[in-house]
Amino acid sequence: MWELTADDVGSLARGAALMGSGGGGSTRAAASLLRHQLERGGPVRVVSPAELPADAHAVPVGLVGSVTVFEEKPAGGREFARAVAALERHTGVACTAVVGFEAAGVNALLAAMAAATLRLPLVDADGMGRAFPELEQTTFYLHGSPIVPVVVADEKGAVLVIDGVDGLVAERLTRAAVVTLGGWGLIALAPQRAGALAETAIRRSISRALDIGRRLDAGDRAGMLAEYGGRTLLRARIVEVERSAGRRFGMGSAVLESLDGDGRTARLEFQNENLLLLEDGEVRAAVPDLICLLARERGRSLTTEEIRFGLEVDVLTLPGAPQWRTRRGLGLVGPRAFSYDVDYAVPGTVR
Amino acid sequence: MWELTADDVGSLARGAALMGSGGGGSTRAAASLLRHQLERGGPVRVVSPAELPADAHAVPVGLVGSVTVFEEKPAGGREFARAVAALERHTGVACTAVVGFEAAGVNALLAAMAAATLRLPLVDADGMGRAFPELEQTTFYLHGSPIVPVVVADEKGAVLVIDGVDGLVAERLTRAAVVTLGGWGLIALAPQRAGALAETAIRRSISRALDIGRRLDAGDRAGMLAEYGGRTLLRARIVEVERSAGRRFGMGSAVLESLDGDGRTARLEFQNENLLLLEDGEVRAAVPDLICLLARERGRSLTTEEIRFGLEVDVLTLPGAPQWRTRRGLGLVGPRAFSYDVDYAVPGTVR
Repeated sequence: MWELTADDVGSLARGAALMGSGGGGSTRAAASLLRHQLERGGPVRVVSPAELPADAHAVPVGLVGSVTVFEEKPAGGREFARAVAALERHTGVACTAVVGFEAAGVNALLAAMAAATLRLPLVDADGMGRAFPELEQTTFYLHGSPIVPVVVADEKGAVLVIDGVDGLVAERLTRAAVVTLGGWGLIALAPQRAGALAETAIRRSISRALDIGRRLDAGDRAGMLAEYGGRTLLRARIVEVERSAGRRFGMGSAVLESLDGDGRTARLEFQNENLLLLEDGEVRAAVPDLICLLARERGRSLTTEEIRFGLEVDVLTLPGAPQWRTRRGLGLVGPRAFSYDVDYAVPGTVR
Repeated sequence: MWELTADDVGSLARGAALMGSGGGGSTRAAASLLRHQLERGGPVRVVSPAELPADAHAVPVGLVGSVTVFEEKPAGGREFARAVAALERHTGVACTAVVGFEAAGVNALLAAMAAATLRLPLVDADGMGRAFPELEQTTFYLHGSPIVPVVVADEKGAVLVIDGVDGLVAERLTRAAVVTLGGWGLIALAPQRAGALAETAIRRSISRALDIGRRLDAGDRAGMLAEYGGRTLLRARIVEVERSAGRRFGMGSAVLESLDGDGRTARLEFQNENLLLLEDGEVRAAVPDLICLLARERGRSLTTEEIRFGLEVDVLTLPGAPQWRTRRGLGLVGPRAFSYDVDYAVPGTVR
């Protein structure tokens, strides 16, 4: 058990932004809400799954929808409380801990925000280990632990309970509801048994994001990469950006030209998250591994929405969670799950 | 208290189709399901609001979405039970009676179907007294009795609880969910206090539909019109049909030419329901009054979807419920609520 304080929020946000792999949205508004909440209400206890009673239940939480809209009309503060109350009433299960379904980008901060407002411990784990676009792209779903019912709450008091459907339909119903509600919803997924989380979740997501953020704050990017098995793929200028109105949101690609005078060029494919880096037609990095663009000027992680012609970036990669690099994991979140006709191969071993 | 038996289903369906005023959809599949259910499970008790304990609660039920899709993939039979169970769990209120929110078209039969499968009495009342396209166009909503939470259930097991929003947003969320679920959903609205139903609902809707159907079966259309204050507006041939992809579903108009050799022509405006009949620019009949087209050939009520060039029809009108002919009622369901630039004026007195 350790405590997450208001002073940690900046580093957590910075690490969470990197873990977003280009997705997860801006952390600015959520960081400000969380800092204010922790200053007022005190720190959040962060616990490992083993520190909870095995038969306790943790509720996975986060935001679905547009982070851009969320930054314009932020949360009122009672959304998670309303969502979890409706979930407990509907399922009859008491939730005594919170776990982020996506401890990256805005959702790492909102998981802590939920724990703070609900006055529950935050489990040091998550369901993605990075950012992904859809609810069923969680290790809970991968391991057959139901993510339904899904409860959606908005800042105006709306509460929706979605039950009796599989994860894919729940995802579509949630998405449709969030559009009708005005752009975003804070959600709670089916309570997860604490005793199963060591297997069904990705461990240490919160401490990893915080540690990554602290190392970046300290200017120790090399140490961060060494610690987490990452490496720098390229230092480059973005010389071409193409965005397509594809069937998935935020789809596009960019051409990157090496800044090292070696004539290398690479192609980045993204869909809300950075998903593939290709060089001479060869896969240099592929989802579920993280592909992170940091602005060379100030070292800030860029979201795919911020990719612009002329930007100079460092392109890093960090390994995705081992659970995703299995055959079943790749079926859910490998390159083919995002309609790319390539296999995940580098750099890890596919089990 | 009286009993609705399998032998009543045909007449109920016929009367309910007329009460649809061109809307409410085909009653064919629902009549067949209901007849089968009543043959197997016995009759449904139909009660007046006064026959229920004042503090009992009736749950308003019906179908939202496409009746055409419903006829292709009908209900499995457990939808209402699942919806009402979720509603009771969410609200903590026990529902001991069923009331149709729309005792016209398919929804008159589905209200009886819900009562039969839930083994609860059916209240002889409804929230529309005819068919309307939207959930907030109910007398419950008119009288300030909440219709939210709304619970949606489909034949594959989906259950959605929608709460914390007003009737208009609930309508939009329900509609969006039903589209995602595949075309239709059976729904339950917020439980209504039995003691208030005498005021907040339209009374005798079920017995009226059944009586209208029986009189039509007996060939006594004149007696039916006399009993319910209706009249024949026109005997005509449809000589023009125009359907527009407007903002509301099923919008269009038709030109009708009198069959009586008097040179009269009339214009029918419809949007899922028949809403206006104009002659020489004058309003001959207007929503909330019913405008019903019966095929001259066999006396069958036609839905707006069935309006076709060349059809010969009798055009009848019946007065809408007095509650709708008030200033507030007309605000919700008068011609202007359907974007027509005319006032309701004929034939009743506007209070």
